[in-house]
Amino acid sequence: MAKFTPISGFPEWTPAERLTEKRIIHSIERRFELYGFASIETRSIEPLDVLLSKGDDKEIYVIKRLHADPDAQGGQDEGAVGLHFDLTVPFARYVLEFQHALSFPFKRYQIQKVWRGERKQEGRYREFYQCDVDIIGQGSLPLAYDIELPRLLYEVINELPIPNAVIKINNRKVLEGVYRGLGIEDIEGTLRVVDKLAKIGPDEVLAQLQVQCSLTQKAAQACLALGQIHGHDATFVEKVKALQVEHPLLDEGLEELCAVLNGCKDLPSGAVEVDLSIARGLNYYTGTVYEGYMVGHEHIGAVCSGGRYDNLAKGGRQPLPGIGVSIGITRILGYLFGRKLLTPVKGTPVDVMVILPDEVSRDAAFAVAQTLRRRGISTDVYHLPQNFGKQMKAAEKRGVRYVLFMGNSDGESHQIKDLVSGDQYEIDIEQWLPETDVSHFNLKGAK
Amino acid sequence: MAKFTPISGFPEWTPAERLTEKRIIHSIERRFELYGFASIETRSIEPLDVLLSKGDDKEIYVIKRLHADPDAQGGQDEGAVGLHFDLTVPFARYVLEFQHALSFPFKRYQIQKVWRGERKQEGRYREFYQCDVDIIGQGSLPLAYDIELPRLLYEVINELPIPNAVIKINNRKVLEGVYRGLGIEDIEGTLRVVDKLAKIGPDEVLAQLQVQCSLTQKAAQACLALGQIHGHDATFVEKVKALQVEHPLLDEGLEELCAVLNGCKDLPSGAVEVDLSIARGLNYYTGTVYEGYMVGHEHIGAVCSGGRYDNLAKGGRQPLPGIGVSIGITRILGYLFGRKLLTPVKGTPVDVMVILPDEVSRDAAFAVAQTLRRRGISTDVYHLPQNFGKQMKAAEKRGVRYVLFMGNSDGESHQIKDLVSGDQYEIDIEQWLPETDVSHFNLKGAK
Repeated sequence: MAKFTPISGFPEWTPAERLTEKRIIHSIERRFELYGFASIETRSIEPLDVLLSKGDDKEIYVIKRLHADPDAQGGQDEGAVGLHFDLTVPFARYVLEFQHALSFPFKRYQIQKVWRGERKQEGRYREFYQCDVDIIGQGSLPLAYDIELPRLLYEVINELPIPNAVIKINNRKVLEGVYRGLGIEDIEGTLRVVDKLAKIGPDEVLAQLQVQCSLTQKAAQACLALGQIHGHDATFVEKVKALQVEHPLLDEGLEELCAVLNGCKDLPSGAVEVDLSIARGLNYYTGTVYEGYMVGHEHIGAVCSGGRYDNLAKGGRQPLPGIGVSIGITRILGYLFGRKLLTPVKGTPVDVMVILPDEVSRDAAFAVAQTLRRRGISTDVYHLPQNFGKQMKAAEKRGVRYVLFMGNSDGESHQIKDLVSGDQYEIDIEQWLPETDVSHFNLKGAK
Repeated sequence: MAKFTPISGFPEWTPAERLTEKRIIHSIERRFELYGFASIETRSIEPLDVLLSKGDDKEIYVIKRLHADPDAQGGQDEGAVGLHFDLTVPFARYVLEFQHALSFPFKRYQIQKVWRGERKQEGRYREFYQCDVDIIGQGSLPLAYDIELPRLLYEVINELPIPNAVIKINNRKVLEGVYRGLGIEDIEGTLRVVDKLAKIGPDEVLAQLQVQCSLTQKAAQACLALGQIHGHDATFVEKVKALQVEHPLLDEGLEELCAVLNGCKDLPSGAVEVDLSIARGLNYYTGTVYEGYMVGHEHIGAVCSGGRYDNLAKGGRQPLPGIGVSIGITRILGYLFGRKLLTPVKGTPVDVMVILPDEVSRDAAFAVAQTLRRRGISTDVYHLPQNFGKQMKAAEKRGVRYVLFMGNSDGESHQIKDLVSGDQYEIDIEQWLPETDVSHFNLKGAK
């Protein structure tokens, strides 16, 4: 039995949980496609040197054939390869490799599993779905896309059976502009410390900025004050200006950030807010950055994040600037399933179970099922002619809402029993439709 | 540039090819769900000993953390693991592990990538989609499912943009019954040789049966004669009986095979046929076996296959007999794309491109796009206010059928130009719908 133990970090769902995950993925895909994003998938492996140049090498899983060909010398076979640890590195490579087949701006989404050889820790997965959406331009990319993404993200999350999200935005140019205006040299180090504000608190940020980044007390205090600015409207600009720091990059950043905030002003209040502590760890971001948090569950950290980068896919004839966000589907679901905040109630796609009265009625039952299936209604025939009570109970246990009792060949009508309302009534199988507002899951707390 | 070379055996599609693959997968999933199959996914890895006990070990990819924890001793970490090489081994393990959460008969489908460290060869992939559908019973499983599967398979393949398929069926009991009736001892060896009939021809089969399996010339000739029997109706039974071999297993097999053939008799002629050369290599099959071939493309081999097994998921309290088939999506698409038999014509989900007249109209254009998106129409806004001809050409190149010219604020109407018909007309964006019969791909040859 030891071999049937779960493997830590490699989650698997029950059919009911998977049905929920599938509906969520389908809903995300549909929304992305309405916005014109095309699906791509990349192979699961990349050459090890490509992975190592971009990622923390501790997180990489290398793969090897158990018995490599003895006649394959070194690189003759596929060479040293590893499983991708995100979808950004493979996407950058794909854009360059398929450049001839793409139209720019290239809007793509990509929902695939990624693997990270992380140490075991709650909420950390070693295999999980990453759900990325990016727009890559050729030469340049209008600021309009910095507005499109948080709007899309808001719409996507709003229609999922998960808690509402707030999308916090910032602009790297604002931070870097202030830092440069203050004469700070270690821009990246300062960014990294400020990014930890929510985790380590203001005192520790002040201390680390002075000790690790060699900032003066005054500069450290200005950086902290900047990181503490947040708000839902353009008044944040006054607070930044009150710091009395000047730099052209700061002006540019404030202008962009105001434009993005303004572009989202018709979204419900609280959907998008400016938070100048959002810095994002990765060094390739150069403008707008995003982080999304589930309201009431902020302690699990950002569930989606992203930003603008000037030239991720280096190697083309022109720069390929882009902007993108990533949604951590597996992390969200693992948390919601694990805490029973989201409870799937249906373990099967079946809407109607045809009751099997006896063995000789099997063909007739199958014909009834075929008629309903042809009309788009998921239908199954009970597998054995057991007593009706047992068949109904089995259907109910699976979360099937309707059972169908077949009429006889003397023209008696088929009858449907609604296991939720308890109603039973005659139907014409060429006309009848199930209720469509069947709930597939319960979400704790209002949306 | 070397790092942007494709990796042999790890295929990647263009966005247009991926759109085709995605529609195909979606169509298969929808059909499976109409029949009541639930989706599951299993983790990509299994313990190496589980993989080794079931598969050809040469095909397995092992995975390892690049820098394993120094404090993890041997099995303390995840132990020796490899990527799954099919979905059957993980499914058998999943059924036992999740037995408490499943209802039997458990109907599941599973569409995931699998990995095989194969030698390089045309048409062989190292990473590819496997698409499995299985029904597992507890204790027993009615023969009705042996009929349901080829019917489902016929429906699934018939609605895909791929050549029509013929599903060849046989029953292991027929073969084994005859072999036992002939006094043959090496049943498995005989099955393996007969299975190669289409590949190596009758003379070689005769020779191998005598040399490798130590059959008498008479027995070898009977086995060959049996393997050459095929047909669309029950007349094949007479041909088997003419061999004058008797065994209870043979009678059982013929009865089952006739029942399956009879259960498919309302399908179009040629959809299903009996072919007694179909043996399937895997030793776990015990009854009905299937192989599907694309008509006119039989030389690439079976594109789907499967059969009934008595107890694949050993370890439960009761036997868990099942039946299933697997469709080789990547192999089918790789062949059809590669030979230009299937040509995707649309590289984007976008139906309507809103023409951007000038920079100040961007918000208005976005609002128009939002209205269409809300109504379920995939819409994009052209990224730059270039001249209209350039914008239309770019839309056409992507396979977008409609462009939209915005009216002005004086109440002028929006206009749609249909790039296929050339028609241009005024529309109400709250009412208008695109044509739905847009073809997304061209299939060479009639369906």
